[in-house]
Amino acid sequence: MTHLTDIEIARAARKQKIQAIGARLDIPEEALLPYGHDKAKVAQSFIEGLRDRPDGKLILVTAITPTPAGEGKTTTTVGLGDGLNRIGKRAAICIREASLGPCFGLKGGAAGGGYAQVIPMEDMNLHFTGDFHAITSAHNLLSAMIDNHIHWGNELQIDQRRVVWRRVMDMNDRALRDIVTSLGGPANGFPRQTGFDITVASEVMAILCLAEDLADLQRRLGEIIVAYTREKEPIRARDLKADGAMTVLLRDAMQPNLVQTLENNPAFVHGGPFANIAHGCNSVISTRLALKLADYVVTEAGFGADLGAEKFMDIKCRKAGLSPDAVVLVATVRSLKMNGGVAKENLGAENPQAVQAGCANLTRHLENLRGFGVPVVVAINRFAGDTEAELEMLRKTVEAEDAEVFLCNHWAEGSAGIEALAHRVAELADSGEAAFQLLYPDTMPLFEKIETVARKIYRADGVDADPRIRAQLAEWEAQGFGDLPVCVAKTQYSFSADPSQRGAVTGHRIPVREVRLSAGAGFIVVICGEIMTMPGLPRTPAAEGIGLNADNQVEGLF
Amino acid sequence: MTHLTDIEIARAARKQKIQAIGARLDIPEEALLPYGHDKAKVAQSFIEGLRDRPDGKLILVTAITPTPAGEGKTTTTVGLGDGLNRIGKRAAICIREASLGPCFGLKGGAAGGGYAQVIPMEDMNLHFTGDFHAITSAHNLLSAMIDNHIHWGNELQIDQRRVVWRRVMDMNDRALRDIVTSLGGPANGFPRQTGFDITVASEVMAILCLAEDLADLQRRLGEIIVAYTREKEPIRARDLKADGAMTVLLRDAMQPNLVQTLENNPAFVHGGPFANIAHGCNSVISTRLALKLADYVVTEAGFGADLGAEKFMDIKCRKAGLSPDAVVLVATVRSLKMNGGVAKENLGAENPQAVQAGCANLTRHLENLRGFGVPVVVAINRFAGDTEAELEMLRKTVEAEDAEVFLCNHWAEGSAGIEALAHRVAELADSGEAAFQLLYPDTMPLFEKIETVARKIYRADGVDADPRIRAQLAEWEAQGFGDLPVCVAKTQYSFSADPSQRGAVTGHRIPVREVRLSAGAGFIVVICGEIMTMPGLPRTPAAEGIGLNADNQVEGLF
Repeated sequence: MTHLTDIEIARAARKQKIQAIGARLDIPEEALLPYGHDKAKVAQSFIEGLRDRPDGKLILVTAITPTPAGEGKTTTTVGLGDGLNRIGKRAAICIREASLGPCFGLKGGAAGGGYAQVIPMEDMNLHFTGDFHAITSAHNLLSAMIDNHIHWGNELQIDQRRVVWRRVMDMNDRALRDIVTSLGGPANGFPRQTGFDITVASEVMAILCLAEDLADLQRRLGEIIVAYTREKEPIRARDLKADGAMTVLLRDAMQPNLVQTLENNPAFVHGGPFANIAHGCNSVISTRLALKLADYVVTEAGFGADLGAEKFMDIKCRKAGLSPDAVVLVATVRSLKMNGGVAKENLGAENPQAVQAGCANLTRHLENLRGFGVPVVVAINRFAGDTEAELEMLRKTVEAEDAEVFLCNHWAEGSAGIEALAHRVAELADSGEAAFQLLYPDTMPLFEKIETVARKIYRADGVDADPRIRAQLAEWEAQGFGDLPVCVAKTQYSFSADPSQRGAVTGHRIPVREVRLSAGAGFIVVICGEIMTMPGLPRTPAAEGIGLNADNQVEGLF
Repeated sequence: MTHLTDIEIARAARKQKIQAIGARLDIPEEALLPYGHDKAKVAQSFIEGLRDRPDGKLILVTAITPTPAGEGKTTTTVGLGDGLNRIGKRAAICIREASLGPCFGLKGGAAGGGYAQVIPMEDMNLHFTGDFHAITSAHNLLSAMIDNHIHWGNELQIDQRRVVWRRVMDMNDRALRDIVTSLGGPANGFPRQTGFDITVASEVMAILCLAEDLADLQRRLGEIIVAYTREKEPIRARDLKADGAMTVLLRDAMQPNLVQTLENNPAFVHGGPFANIAHGCNSVISTRLALKLADYVVTEAGFGADLGAEKFMDIKCRKAGLSPDAVVLVATVRSLKMNGGVAKENLGAENPQAVQAGCANLTRHLENLRGFGVPVVVAINRFAGDTEAELEMLRKTVEAEDAEVFLCNHWAEGSAGIEALAHRVAELADSGEAAFQLLYPDTMPLFEKIETVARKIYRADGVDADPRIRAQLAEWEAQGFGDLPVCVAKTQYSFSADPSQRGAVTGHRIPVREVRLSAGAGFIVVICGEIMTMPGLPRTPAAEGIGLNADNQVEGLF
């Protein structure tokens, strides 16, 4: 067992120059735009030349319902990527970029853990290659152009009460949630109540992650609905002529970022939309690039499988024409115990019964995932304190569901601890067993789509929604938005809309509070419960303990 | 004569890899942190190793009072750097970074013009290496920590009415000038009236540009006064424990950026504070780095010599212990004509009398600059339409002041057009003729410092200020801030505080409206007239015409 922290392990890593990592995937040096010696963007022109290559196999790593005990989804994604490389496969990892703001609230934000990490950690948790700053700029340029248009005469007849486009900042700043702008007289425009969201909640982020190329990016940006007229006619970013300049601001950000794992295997880290009001997956462009360059691509989706995997399938794969070849469902003994009703402070005590109870959550996710027609295996991310009795109970319970379970020790051992899973996943992906199917067809009416997700995935008895909400959905259907998928924003801590209901809750209903149209991203956001789009800082923010040490290394960020 | 636009010339340039540019100054490859193939940051560790090297000669390029006709200060800075290299000198250029926001308002923002440009233009006018985004993040983290501190109990007893730290965004957005935050109930904090400035107006920008190293940066950030208590005791960033995290966010941004001129000569482009409420110069760290690596360093300061050169001398050189060896005062025939009373639409007509009248402005700047004890020469940035009669009048008038004047054609010819100036500037810098002296000593009382600048530089009859302002200055003196220099924020279009008074106005007084303490940057801002710290977009923003062309190149930005 190691006694080193994640950051100590990361700093001790023998990093290779990013050109050497690119060479592993036959990316020529001139196609890499370096950011320092250990990060690079892959040039758009190179990507365009790969169109006719065959795709590798796509493997999704997802998890049971998250608890404060931790599941290790990213750790397992990284570990499996390393494991596939270890057994001689040409594999790459695709994960999301971290948001800057939250790092100054609570510690965390590392990319994996133990001996299954992506580096350089510090950069990835700070500015990285500037993608999120570019998204912030593009979003806020559009915001400024809206108020500017109104200020100079409002030719488009925007109803100032119906501006739906807010501003964004990559910072946890509760003071900006609800503000009044344009005070101070005529030179400052017309006062209006509005607010800021955190950058990852921007529709621009979702768009960047779903766009196929720069032309598609600009088209989608143009589709963004920013406001309505008095007659409720939508005003789009294109009507304000903002789409071209926004695309210019995002040109570099559209190029996927290449970094490496601790074992010097290639990792693409690109995009990071919220997993509630957006789809929570890394960018389509980086997933596609990785599929062109590697034989196996391991990726992950946000939160548990009910939210993350469902959106990966029904939004990302549907939109991008992707098709997963295998799914890995991750759990830890500790998180199963919490799903089985154990409080965090009691996780240290051996409790096979709680593991068995928690497996109800795991097996429900398993059934759900099988519904997509893709082979699924269970990976247990081992902790030092897991007992034999607990692991045996887990194995027995999962195998009773006709599922394979792999005990993985990549956190402590790196790729050596995950070889068995790697072999099996490669075999499954190569088997052609996958017969991927979406949960619902495009043509299904919007409300039925919500009901389908609620019944089949959340196992709810039904969906509650005001006539107002049903009328809004009908209106969008009439306007031609009926073929969009739905993106449910719901607590990640339960199958239900109540975060306190762990395990495999039944008998619940899903209450829809609000629906929003993300016309650029191409989905309908269905808000069920309180969703925070601008976090606040805690009483003692992590920022207070963050600083440079004598070697100018960052301390306190992790 | 060329008929190509600046951007066409820039795109046709034969760029060298940034490592080759670094090699010109003996910067080893491992000390360059590349950002793509044509930009790099110079590693902090390399900079630290240069401390004991002797310094090269420092040459300041400044200009007459700016007019819409244009003076070509940056063009001449770039041209002179190329000219010095052409005549066999080891020379580097140090200029400021461009602000992103204004590029979407009005076209412009290029780094030089014609055949005297720094490239890559697009990147420099967009995100470049992310420095300004880092400044925005560091500034707004502090803002969030202030409101968060108040929200969680306000242990420091911040008077919510006396929070002086605003937020920043690198965007022209008038709607954010004057806002009310924290609406929506207790979870969002205490409502407060505040606003956003543009990022270049942030004190963090001024601090980054004056800090010697990361330790000095953190010390200065800690000194920032963000608010006062009811008893008017200052609350600093350090009291909120924000200085460490802000330094972490700025760690990479503190490293100077290296790019190249069209003639493949090294150019450091780093920092860009406002030239009114701040000192308007590139960073001390990049100027010092350039002085260690090159025998001649050509730099510039914002606006005309009354504001830019005065602040360069009395703030930057004073604080950093720098000492200029020669000054170049730039003018164009067209700008002299405008200073001589000609309207922009009549600039096409030959008018030697207007040139002569405009020379009153030039000669006053000349006298002012000589007062700093540094040799000054005049450079005329030639335009195709300048007539022989006009140039002759100019030469005669300047030479009557015992000054040398050089007609320079670098815009059209590159370094070949500026050889004579390069030879003379090198000679002057080497001559040891410079006996640099500051305009006033640190020990002079603050109000006297303002009066000294007003009388000696602006040639005003005196300074008008409320008793309230004098009392504030006295209070700061009592608190130990009396030895700070003053940073006058005044219109750049006149020696007076009235922008309509061109030429060499006399008989005016300087009205002080407000004084502000920049305790981290280390100067007292003296506001004389309307100073806009958050620009707005025009009726038809440049953004509407900005987009990517079929080759994914940026159009409409220049």
